[in-house]
Amino acid sequence: MRVGIDVGGTTVKVGFVDGKNIVYDYEIETKGGNLFEKVFENVCAFAKEKNIKIDGVGIGVPGHVENNYITKLPNVGLENFDIALCAKKYFSDDIVIKSSNDANVAALGEAVYSNIPSCFMVTLGTGVGGGMVKNYKIVEGAHYSVGEIGHMVIDLKHNYQCTCGLKGCLETVSSATGITRLAYEYQKDYRKSSIDFSHLTAKEVVDNAKLGDELAIKVLKEATENLGRALASVAVCVDPEAFFIGGGVAKAGDFLIDMIKHYYKEYAHFAVKDIMILPAKLGNKAGIFGASQLVEMGE
Amino acid sequence: MRVGIDVGGTTVKVGFVDGKNIVYDYEIETKGGNLFEKVFENVCAFAKEKNIKIDGVGIGVPGHVENNYITKLPNVGLENFDIALCAKKYFSDDIVIKSSNDANVAALGEAVYSNIPSCFMVTLGTGVGGGMVKNYKIVEGAHYSVGEIGHMVIDLKHNYQCTCGLKGCLETVSSATGITRLAYEYQKDYRKSSIDFSHLTAKEVVDNAKLGDELAIKVLKEATENLGRALASVAVCVDPEAFFIGGGVAKAGDFLIDMIKHYYKEYAHFAVKDIMILPAKLGNKAGIFGASQLVEMGE
Repeated sequence: MRVGIDVGGTTVKVGFVDGKNIVYDYEIETKGGNLFEKVFENVCAFAKEKNIKIDGVGIGVPGHVENNYITKLPNVGLENFDIALCAKKYFSDDIVIKSSNDANVAALGEAVYSNIPSCFMVTLGTGVGGGMVKNYKIVEGAHYSVGEIGHMVIDLKHNYQCTCGLKGCLETVSSATGITRLAYEYQKDYRKSSIDFSHLTAKEVVDNAKLGDELAIKVLKEATENLGRALASVAVCVDPEAFFIGGGVAKAGDFLIDMIKHYYKEYAHFAVKDIMILPAKLGNKAGIFGASQLVEMGE
Repeated sequence: MRVGIDVGGTTVKVGFVDGKNIVYDYEIETKGGNLFEKVFENVCAFAKEKNIKIDGVGIGVPGHVENNYITKLPNVGLENFDIALCAKKYFSDDIVIKSSNDANVAALGEAVYSNIPSCFMVTLGTGVGGGMVKNYKIVEGAHYSVGEIGHMVIDLKHNYQCTCGLKGCLETVSSATGITRLAYEYQKDYRKSSIDFSHLTAKEVVDNAKLGDELAIKVLKEATENLGRALASVAVCVDPEAFFIGGGVAKAGDFLIDMIKHYYKEYAHFAVKDIMILPAKLGNKAGIFGASQLVEMGE
């Protein structure tokens, strides 16, 4: 079996994958340092207990990793860390160890799971992230920035300040944060809105939009119009077979996907108008499944 | 030697290439049909006369070609045409025959000539075209639309109608046509402009901008700001090592390139801010040189 490891800020998800089946999966708490040591030791113990032969280990990390080397990963407290060197202590040399950025890994997972060799994955969460897969291989780019479409300058109307330093980035309006920001922006114009601003989340906006709340609908239209226009631009740059939409906000389901599709078609060049826009299917298992597929990916 | 063939609407350019040197190059008139037959016959005769051993033949065509098969190429009057089948009549089976879209071929030419394995080429002409090369291989995309950034919807200010059916496409403001369109737009606000509107071309605008004409400068600022912002978006999609700027408008030289760089840096995410923006170096020989490199490209 292949092992897929999804490294997060507070927990690490581990999966044992056979073909397209996640046979076992569990989470490990990772407080107090030595993250990779703890995880690898745990994986070896679990494999021994269940009598599993490990064919390879793939790892998704929340940041930049190059040839299994992490220069800096502040959100998990790692610096100048060689994953492969650490893995040598736990696995024999013939076991492939591969790692990549978590957004890319999720894209690879969706591609393999859906049998779509070349796709572009968009994650709508606190920010807007993305990753690209071509012929079942992750495309990294010269600065490991392929797919970072959250920082396309797309909204010159509000031109909100982004955390990256730019203004008008896609994620200032189309992420979960962007959706709540837009709700505040228009709050005073819609006194009758049912949105509960004392507990404002993107989900609160989506839920109210589904019930027909005018403010919520206005906000989601603007968020998805910007996203649809951005994806139409992405399409003439990279021309994927499909877009996958994942991340927390995407849990809104077809309601949101249909809005994105609507605006995508409005702004897409005829040659790329029929690119599929699909909900990501793996949910929070995209990380472990995608990571397990790194093993297969080759160079 | 490798042969590079650049098929155009009225003439076909032919080059015999040894390493990075174009040893011979010439143009053939191609009126009256049987384009490929005439060109291949000519190439064989030329090679025989000069005692040249041909290693392979690469062809750039102005449109879509797939596995050496042209479905439709209205500007050169070809339909359902098999380039490889035609080539068989003139070349022995061991000679590689390869073809691709001319924008992609030009991108490949610049990449190889400049030793930059992964680049994105933008051609500023009547429209705005582009092509992408990754590890010295052309990236085609699912609908052969990679690099068609002329149809990114980028200018919501004027929202000009584009020939493609959309509004606000990059090429409505940043192509040669776009530059003259913007000059007309602002003409009435700049009565003292030296631009000769009876012979209005993009070159006329650029020449006047170089002399300090305020209208011309306003127009070029707007054209290059839109282009710079578009390229900043392209950068977070595909993250190339360099952008090459070619096509007729790019003959304006560093004056224009510097403006594009300025706006690119204004809109580019920090991770991709240092991507090089370079003038294309091969001029109208990018087609033949790039085509000759198709032979090396492999699958």
